[in-house]
Amino acid sequence: MDTYLILSALAGVVALLFAFFLASSISKANAGNERMREIAGYIHEGAMAFLYREYRYLVIFAIAVFIILSIFINWQTAVCYIAGALCSVLAGYIGMQVATKANVRTTEAARNGMGQAIKIAFSGGAVMGMSVAGLGVLGLGAMFLLFAKDVNYIAGFGLGASSIALFARVGGGIYTKAADVGADLVGKVEAGIPEDDPRNPAVIADNVGDNVGDVAGMGADLFESYVGSLISAFTLGVLIFKGGEGVLFPIALCALGIIASIIGILVGRGSNADNPQAALNMGTYVAGGITVVAAGVLSMWLFGDLKAFLALTAGLIAGLAIGKVTEIYTSGDYGSVKKIAEQSQTGPATTIISGMAVGMYSTMWPMLFITAGMLVSYFVMGGGLKGLYGIALAAVGMLSTTGITVAVDAYGPISDNAGGIAEMSELPHSVREVTDKLDAVGNTTAAIAKGFAIGSAALTALALFASYAQSVKLDAIDLLDPLTLAGLFLGAMVPFLFGALTMEAVGKAANEMIEEVRRQFREIPGLMEGKAKAEYATCVDIATGAALHKMVVPGTLAVVLPLAVGLILGTESLAGFVAGALVTGVLMAVFMANAGGAWDNAKKYIEGGEYGGKGSNTHKAAVVGDTVGDPFKDTSGPAMNILIKLMTIVSLVFAPVFVKYGGLVSHLLK
Amino acid sequence: MDTYLILSALAGVVALLFAFFLASSISKANAGNERMREIAGYIHEGAMAFLYREYRYLVIFAIAVFIILSIFINWQTAVCYIAGALCSVLAGYIGMQVATKANVRTTEAARNGMGQAIKIAFSGGAVMGMSVAGLGVLGLGAMFLLFAKDVNYIAGFGLGASSIALFARVGGGIYTKAADVGADLVGKVEAGIPEDDPRNPAVIADNVGDNVGDVAGMGADLFESYVGSLISAFTLGVLIFKGGEGVLFPIALCALGIIASIIGILVGRGSNADNPQAALNMGTYVAGGITVVAAGVLSMWLFGDLKAFLALTAGLIAGLAIGKVTEIYTSGDYGSVKKIAEQSQTGPATTIISGMAVGMYSTMWPMLFITAGMLVSYFVMGGGLKGLYGIALAAVGMLSTTGITVAVDAYGPISDNAGGIAEMSELPHSVREVTDKLDAVGNTTAAIAKGFAIGSAALTALALFASYAQSVKLDAIDLLDPLTLAGLFLGAMVPFLFGALTMEAVGKAANEMIEEVRRQFREIPGLMEGKAKAEYATCVDIATGAALHKMVVPGTLAVVLPLAVGLILGTESLAGFVAGALVTGVLMAVFMANAGGAWDNAKKYIEGGEYGGKGSNTHKAAVVGDTVGDPFKDTSGPAMNILIKLMTIVSLVFAPVFVKYGGLVSHLLK
Repeated sequence: MDTYLILSALAGVVALLFAFFLASSISKANAGNERMREIAGYIHEGAMAFLYREYRYLVIFAIAVFIILSIFINWQTAVCYIAGALCSVLAGYIGMQVATKANVRTTEAARNGMGQAIKIAFSGGAVMGMSVAGLGVLGLGAMFLLFAKDVNYIAGFGLGASSIALFARVGGGIYTKAADVGADLVGKVEAGIPEDDPRNPAVIADNVGDNVGDVAGMGADLFESYVGSLISAFTLGVLIFKGGEGVLFPIALCALGIIASIIGILVGRGSNADNPQAALNMGTYVAGGITVVAAGVLSMWLFGDLKAFLALTAGLIAGLAIGKVTEIYTSGDYGSVKKIAEQSQTGPATTIISGMAVGMYSTMWPMLFITAGMLVSYFVMGGGLKGLYGIALAAVGMLSTTGITVAVDAYGPISDNAGGIAEMSELPHSVREVTDKLDAVGNTTAAIAKGFAIGSAALTALALFASYAQSVKLDAIDLLDPLTLAGLFLGAMVPFLFGALTMEAVGKAANEMIEEVRRQFREIPGLMEGKAKAEYATCVDIATGAALHKMVVPGTLAVVLPLAVGLILGTESLAGFVAGALVTGVLMAVFMANAGGAWDNAKKYIEGGEYGGKGSNTHKAAVVGDTVGDPFKDTSGPAMNILIKLMTIVSLVFAPVFVKYGGLVSHLLK
Repeated sequence: MDTYLILSALAGVVALLFAFFLASSISKANAGNERMREIAGYIHEGAMAFLYREYRYLVIFAIAVFIILSIFINWQTAVCYIAGALCSVLAGYIGMQVATKANVRTTEAARNGMGQAIKIAFSGGAVMGMSVAGLGVLGLGAMFLLFAKDVNYIAGFGLGASSIALFARVGGGIYTKAADVGADLVGKVEAGIPEDDPRNPAVIADNVGDNVGDVAGMGADLFESYVGSLISAFTLGVLIFKGGEGVLFPIALCALGIIASIIGILVGRGSNADNPQAALNMGTYVAGGITVVAAGVLSMWLFGDLKAFLALTAGLIAGLAIGKVTEIYTSGDYGSVKKIAEQSQTGPATTIISGMAVGMYSTMWPMLFITAGMLVSYFVMGGGLKGLYGIALAAVGMLSTTGITVAVDAYGPISDNAGGIAEMSELPHSVREVTDKLDAVGNTTAAIAKGFAIGSAALTALALFASYAQSVKLDAIDLLDPLTLAGLFLGAMVPFLFGALTMEAVGKAANEMIEEVRRQFREIPGLMEGKAKAEYATCVDIATGAALHKMVVPGTLAVVLPLAVGLILGTESLAGFVAGALVTGVLMAVFMANAGGAWDNAKKYIEGGEYGGKGSNTHKAAVVGDTVGDPFKDTSGPAMNILIKLMTIVSLVFAPVFVKYGGLVSHLLK
């Protein structure tokens, strides 16, 4: 069994080698003329500046947590924590390095049509995907084997991944929207210059934001889910199956998922370039198909039946279904978006009301699918502890092809960047047309990836929730106990608080950005005429600083609140707290992401010529919806994924402390 | 003990007699000149037309439920159901009759200054308040005594109250906003005529809406909470205390609360009229003070200690605290509203984002207060079943002075109506100034009453939830059971669905109204010039029809969903479902009500001259916020109160069915 375990972990090395192969093939591509390279250089520098500044915060944060873990838990968990954080950082670093190389090379390739451009952009995304999956399997596998397969320590690895995800996703989300709003409001609206115009001082920050938020942020989010679901499956698997098959099944599946993702990526890169959407879809289906077959074989081999396979497939289907629903509610091809566009005719208020209604409606199906996925995976495994293991497998199933999921998603911002570079380098309009087409494909796939991110976050948090209950030895979490109910009430409130904090953060950061852009237009002579250069670096610096400052409060809350509830109200109350946060967190995530996506595409639908097209009053109303939707879909909504996973894993890691010292007040009351 | 019980129930008669006394004093007041009487007549007719049409729907609905209850539960519950529905209908009918008389008399009195005007408006509200409290205590007490003090039947009374509340609050909420938006959008914006201008065909419907939504809707909402909290206290009280003191304590307290409210109302009517806010506050404090003292005495007499008193006071304090927080987040005197006004300078998008953030933030304190109130009232009674009884007492504490709470609240729309009548009758501007002052007072108190309505709905639903668990004999509601978790997930989603449905209903109803107003301006020659009369009745008719049609789907869902979950997934899953709906329902109610209130007052703050005042771009942005906020605060937000109580009481009433036939699918799974 050990040999297989080691082999599975080594699949991570294969993933990294493949990422290396893709990265060097990108490096070899032509990076365009001097102007293009200069602009790409700014973006690259800006992205790296964000990373390095983030690392400074991170180091302090990580050292503090390391010390706390060493004192209150044990040094092994602390080591796992550092390993998890390092793996996530490394994946993000590799992904960003390559994405900021792939963007300009995609632009250059787009001068000769779609064929080569899609290949480079997709390869760029695939590097991020392979790094996430590879470092996840390798890092977690190494820790598991290092500590003699004792599952008590590896939750630390998940906590490490969660910490980085917090910085990358929440900080990145604030960054990208602050830069976006700043660039749009002063550049497009006040100065009246087009999008991605090099005279706009915030334009580089805006392009950096795409990388920071959509490449690194999404990558860290899925890395966290990926290792979280594995940790939960490991914890429960060791408890139930004594022969090691409970651990081998999920990790071997992820190893095969990596191989399947590599095949899928090769299919995606090689297939017909005239239809990029079909190419991406084909790659995804091939990878999914292989994984499902592999799951069936593994299930028969390890358990002698297909139960584990069915549990896992339930998760996969739920993930796909959520993705499809996300598309239906947010794509311009369907009724919801068209209705928002229609309602925009009576002004911005009706745009907002109808978008909110769409977002609220859209929570129904994902909740049903998550519930169904959970029930099927639980009961198909026979309920009880095995059933909980089944839920963990459903999460693993959704995430086993993370390699290609991230690849398809990160491809979007790379194409978006490529378009920006084409614009800023004043390349012929035909180049921009090609990158726009690539970007449009990216938008649809990004919506689906968001659905996947939410679904997997929910199932992962559920599985970790079950692990937590095991860990603190709760036989039941009784809602008739008012302490549990109190936890439920308080936990359910946290996503609302988190949403308010992150939306406000975007607003404040955007205001700083707006001030700076206005200052540059005012103080730099000749900037408007294109004779002087804008100070891009100052804008990048402001966005970076603001994003990192503004995430301190929500980030601290996400860590401190579960600790406070556990210590004051006790383990059962904390379970209620986590359940409450999980349930409203998922609802708010879906609501905000889909309302935001629907507003975005309603605006695009009108720009396509409906209801008076660009510049009409209807369009103006739709722009209001889009602006409201920006922090909804790119900051607060995705931040919920992190919140629910982070609070659950904090509870799991600190379980021993709660058992010992928890419930200070509740003991007094009882 | 029986004598005291009968005496307590008879306090209801006192309340009704006092209401009769107030009503006849209003009738005696001068109803103004012919024009005023004509307009008041239209409003009165419109309000009654809505009621009669509503009754037609109600009769069908009530007969269907009566038959279902008779077959599946028992005839006694069915009789209680009809009694509860009749009491609520009667309270609403009396309240509306008098409110639509008090409005014009307030206008007339306002010609001679504040003194008499406030007295009439407040008396009008007090009739509604006294009817609610009186019929609640009398009706419920009568049923309890009629069926030989068997608490198994009286839940039917609560279901009856809930059914009416659904029609009155949800239907009324849709009505009032459809009429409001219709009147504003075509009248003020398109035709450019002032608010409450008699040329506007929707102006009568708009004034009817204030009565339908804010008088009858709020009354039915609090009637439901009032009897709901009593039912829960009865059910648990009988179980715990064999001597009848468990029942006597809450009903005697409500009886004394009626007397206290009467004293409070007399104080409020009699005190210094120069400062109407102080008069209303004084009345409320006097009533509250008397009730608290009475609770202490009762607690010592019946139980020999102050535990019940403390539990009850915890609820009262929580209610007041929520009211205060509501004021802080929604009044123009505090930071949140000022911030929204400031953010409106950069356009409607930032208005919306900052208002949403305020609404989300504002959920924190109410959740903390509800949680604290629940924990204190539970543990002070000693936990266990007695603790649950304590939670019911906390709800009773919040509601014992319902008489004056409703009075203070219903006073607002009466003053608002008085202003409208002054405008339409072209009275001197000074009259409108007086009624505007009265109305402004009403707005603050309405915000507080909304906080009370939400807080009491939450505690009542919690108490009923506990009764339900007793009724289906659940020893625990275990969140580690995936069926319970599934219930939690599904239940938590329902308020989002309900919010989407009700917001959409307002949109559609408003559109019908807009079409009609446009048609009249187009087709009636001389209307704009004031030479021809608008067809008010058509607009009233459209609002009535639309409101009642559009509430069928959300209303049916609120009844059918808990039945479906109970039958398919079983009693424990249904408990999770109710808990989930309760938790997100309260969050959404607070979020929507406070965001809406804050937008409303941010607009008013700007109209007070800040940031360029009326007509500025900042003002236009704030108007967008206000328009979005209208269905938030007056339709969807308050509808949540009904939703959570209705679903809980449906679960409680049908508990015997679930025990027998429930969990069709879950039995198969296990």
